[in-house]
Amino acid sequence: MMQAISIRGGKGGADALFVESLPVPEPGPGQLLVRVKAAGVNRPDIFQRAGFYPPPPGAPATLGLEVAGEVAAIGEGVTRWRPGDRVTALLGGGGYAEYALVDARHALPVPAGLDFVHAAALPETVFTVWSNVFERGQLQSGETLLVHGANSGIGVTAIQLAKAAGARVFATARGAAKAAQASEIGADVAIDAATGDWAEGIKAAGGVDVILDMVGAAYFERNLDVLAPDGRLVVIATLTGHEVQLNLRQLMLKRLTVTASTLRARHADEKARLARAIEDRVWPWIEAGSVKVPVDRTFPLERAGEAHAWLESGSQFGKVVLTVE
Amino acid sequence: MMQAISIRGGKGGADALFVESLPVPEPGPGQLLVRVKAAGVNRPDIFQRAGFYPPPPGAPATLGLEVAGEVAAIGEGVTRWRPGDRVTALLGGGGYAEYALVDARHALPVPAGLDFVHAAALPETVFTVWSNVFERGQLQSGETLLVHGANSGIGVTAIQLAKAAGARVFATARGAAKAAQASEIGADVAIDAATGDWAEGIKAAGGVDVILDMVGAAYFERNLDVLAPDGRLVVIATLTGHEVQLNLRQLMLKRLTVTASTLRARHADEKARLARAIEDRVWPWIEAGSVKVPVDRTFPLERAGEAHAWLESGSQFGKVVLTVE
Repeated sequence: MMQAISIRGGKGGADALFVESLPVPEPGPGQLLVRVKAAGVNRPDIFQRAGFYPPPPGAPATLGLEVAGEVAAIGEGVTRWRPGDRVTALLGGGGYAEYALVDARHALPVPAGLDFVHAAALPETVFTVWSNVFERGQLQSGETLLVHGANSGIGVTAIQLAKAAGARVFATARGAAKAAQASEIGADVAIDAATGDWAEGIKAAGGVDVILDMVGAAYFERNLDVLAPDGRLVVIATLTGHEVQLNLRQLMLKRLTVTASTLRARHADEKARLARAIEDRVWPWIEAGSVKVPVDRTFPLERAGEAHAWLESGSQFGKVVLTVE
Repeated sequence: MMQAISIRGGKGGADALFVESLPVPEPGPGQLLVRVKAAGVNRPDIFQRAGFYPPPPGAPATLGLEVAGEVAAIGEGVTRWRPGDRVTALLGGGGYAEYALVDARHALPVPAGLDFVHAAALPETVFTVWSNVFERGQLQSGETLLVHGANSGIGVTAIQLAKAAGARVFATARGAAKAAQASEIGADVAIDAATGDWAEGIKAAGGVDVILDMVGAAYFERNLDVLAPDGRLVVIATLTGHEVQLNLRQLMLKRLTVTASTLRARHADEKARLARAIEDRVWPWIEAGSVKVPVDRTFPLERAGEAHAWLESGSQFGKVVLTVE
């Protein structure tokens, strides 16, 4: 048996999370059983806990989209990994536990020099940023990226990956202190979105080529307005709503692209492809120290509810991670 | 002096077009002077004539976005072309005339086996379809394309290029006769959009990967509805309006992309890049006979007004071309 975090009544507030004793799962063909040392906490976990984001078919009902730990056992057909290997992996769910099942193709080695806590903070944000900013958004060296929500795990990762790739970065955050933090981790221009209109200065500076947005409706019109010709808006969350007005003529005249995605619903083969692209392109930056995903706070697994409440407060800078003894 | 078509009063109906005597222009650095043998008629010409689509800065005020003919003179620095070469070219304007200036980089050789009339029918539609369906829309072999307005010059070109590239093609046209014509030139499934809802059958068939749309607002919601996951909607005109409602959540869940563009406003360097890509990829299909741009009717240059009226009637299948003695 193992300890895992469940949701009392199937959904609720942060205080609905509790420790339950569940059987240790057995790895099927192509799977790893990972002894979890650290598990990342992500905003989709909060939506799922609140009942708004049910796990996709076949995913565990328990929370947790990313872990780092040691391979405890391997399923049939797994050749790359052996028991004892240090891995970090993207999961369909079930990461808030002492053991988790992982598609062996969705695991990457813990980067040299990183502990389990920092390794567990990588998959969800790195997969999301890589697939949205560099694949869907096609950010190129020499172009300009605008990142909203610079203080989130996604935000800090996007800023650093874009800088590592040779792009210029504008970032918005709410409050002067957070804007200062965004500058510290590499944003060329950090804007306090709580005072005045963030769009004015960006437009005056000639606009941006790619925007990574989690805000949705409230920023949509201004996002299109600050995009330069041939610009791309990539929406990955809609915290302020999802119904917007779009002017197709504006899109035509500026040759703009609006695209959006979620990570979790993608096919396992697609996540496997992403994992290899990320290992090739992003892992060297992490091992060279040019990309660091800051961890804001850690909480022991059994205090997952407090971790959720902290993330919901919006006060963090970087990732929140659960640790498992 | 040369004959050219001007617009009486600067804008008006088809009957505002008249023959004017203008000086033969002289090629500047990097330009060709082309003795026009045939000039394509396009919908943007009609918008410009009606006063809705002013020529971009630096473009001639006279109509005409594409010509085929013989090089009459070359400007400084032109090395690829010589007087007497048979070329077809994309123009910023001024094609409805006995002579036209061409950026030498925007000219392509008349494909082997084609006369000037058929060569003049190529640039506007081929550049538009290539850049929107294959570049912006990223249509891949084995994927499915939906083309609206199958009977237009753009429509017939899109159907044939997509088939040549190994894609499956759905096409809509208004009326059973036009749908039958779309099938004849290669559409796998041609739908009469005048009877019933075109979207139902496409959705039942599993949706499409890319849509090339000139309809705009009236089709927008159904376009997003029939896109398969990771689908791309490319809008190149908005004949029914341009203000639409967009649901960003739908975009996220299906990982859709909405993009739009016009050809004329692009930078000359970008058009030069497109010309070389098209010469490499599309010209061999045309020379092999696997892509034929049908010419619906020709009119002598001085009857340009009748050509406009015919295009405005919506009765054509394929391109309308002006011929110059």
